[in-house]
Amino acid sequence: MNGGIGLDRLSLNQATVKRLGLREAVELCVRHEIPAIGLWRDRVAETGLAEATAVVRAAGLRVSSLCRGGFFTVADPGGHRAALADNLAALEEAAELGTGTLVLVCGGLPAGQRDLGLARRMVADAIGSLVPAALRYGVRLGIEALHPMFCADRCVISSLGEAVDLAALFPAEAVGVVVDTYHVWWDARLADEIARAGRRIVSFQVCDWVLPLPADTLLGRGHLGDGCIDFAPIAAAVAAAGYDGDVEVEIFNAQVWDAPPDVTATAVRERFAAVLGGGGARRLSG
Amino acid sequence: MNGGIGLDRLSLNQATVKRLGLREAVELCVRHEIPAIGLWRDRVAETGLAEATAVVRAAGLRVSSLCRGGFFTVADPGGHRAALADNLAALEEAAELGTGTLVLVCGGLPAGQRDLGLARRMVADAIGSLVPAALRYGVRLGIEALHPMFCADRCVISSLGEAVDLAALFPAEAVGVVVDTYHVWWDARLADEIARAGRRIVSFQVCDWVLPLPADTLLGRGHLGDGCIDFAPIAAAVAAAGYDGDVEVEIFNAQVWDAPPDVTATAVRERFAAVLGGGGARRLSG
Repeated sequence: MNGGIGLDRLSLNQATVKRLGLREAVELCVRHEIPAIGLWRDRVAETGLAEATAVVRAAGLRVSSLCRGGFFTVADPGGHRAALADNLAALEEAAELGTGTLVLVCGGLPAGQRDLGLARRMVADAIGSLVPAALRYGVRLGIEALHPMFCADRCVISSLGEAVDLAALFPAEAVGVVVDTYHVWWDARLADEIARAGRRIVSFQVCDWVLPLPADTLLGRGHLGDGCIDFAPIAAAVAAAGYDGDVEVEIFNAQVWDAPPDVTATAVRERFAAVLGGGGARRLSG
Repeated sequence: MNGGIGLDRLSLNQATVKRLGLREAVELCVRHEIPAIGLWRDRVAETGLAEATAVVRAAGLRVSSLCRGGFFTVADPGGHRAALADNLAALEEAAELGTGTLVLVCGGLPAGQRDLGLARRMVADAIGSLVPAALRYGVRLGIEALHPMFCADRCVISSLGEAVDLAALFPAEAVGVVVDTYHVWWDARLADEIARAGRRIVSFQVCDWVLPLPADTLLGRGHLGDGCIDFAPIAAAVAAAGYDGDVEVEIFNAQVWDAPPDVTATAVRERFAAVLGGGGARRLSG
């Protein structure tokens, strides 16, 4: 195995071309022979679910994932019920759109709270309550570990190992994990945790860690090759774990968003081929 | 055990009052009945080693640690030799100043490199080569895991577990770990890793995680209680691991630096007593 990933597995996550509506993003993928797309719920809603589904299908694209559910760490009962209802709706949308993966950003500390253990139990409880619906819709909940710098305000699941531990509480047909290079590249245990995740991996997302971090740390991501991440060994570990699905390029970066979408799509394809296309994969040391 | 830490164990890390010279920082500690100080090499050098030692001794302060050694991930042979020589000098200074701990910030990725495994082996090799000197001087090298957001550019040791694994390669009399709440609070495995660290803990540093992160992410730290960290369970875990040494308040924050030092010292004491003084310690969940 040389670890190479062909362009036939490239997916453009819609967040990479944030300014485009769903129809424009789909057309961009078609124009650049990108065979899959990761959709976002706000853009789906704007287009209308039925219309969005029709547009994607007519274009012949696969939908690699729907972003995103989660934000479970709401303490007040009304907000908690609303979060669960919203996640149920997201599962239904994912099924309609024809993707098997709903990406979860689980939520940070509840307002005014400092108890990480409590927040993590809230996440586990919420995921548990969504399992029956996930099984019914045939959509897996993908727990995404976010970088620890987002632990307080966005996601208390801060390492892949923690995501795997959490997913393992539930049936594999209902709950998996998302491996996003930006969030987990630093982890000395990454190779072991990817192996342990195995068939639980429901999505593989890639972008680079670029320094210096921008003022808004959400936007510090870059095109593959522009930063510090050694992608080949991570990709090889993900492949060895058995994941052979689409690979999403998801870049939150104000400059990328300001670039002409065709320039972005061209860069996405070229970098994907150059960085992940194989030939140079090494074992992930660690 | 209620996990409380008395003010007799409070140490002011000099970085908290960055604008003060060593003599002024020592006088501040004396004025505020802070019995220990964490020193920085640049301020020691500015004062002169012999003079700094005399000033601290005359004031009756303990030196809880010397910051800092490390920055081992230099690829070129000349730079590598210089880094080792500088660390040997730091060990000698620590011994002269009467502290048993040299804090290590191990270094980020070598310039132009992306191989984390290589960087981590460089760190391990460098620490190994310093062990004989550490034993000779009776000073322990404290491996500090820095927050993963600093992995690329400052320290490839990104979790306490990784620091413990690394320290365990060497004699406990020579190499230990530093637990700094700012860097490790997010870790779901923290309680287990603190327990595993046990007597390897050579320093316990505290400050809070404050949002939003500032543009310079090095400076996003706050006074205890100003942020998101639940200190009591971490302090209880550190106590249960057997650590009963000084507890350093180390705050990198431009506003704290701009405040009058007496205001800062007063806040440091008050927050330390309120947040760590005991009565409310809980077990670290996770």
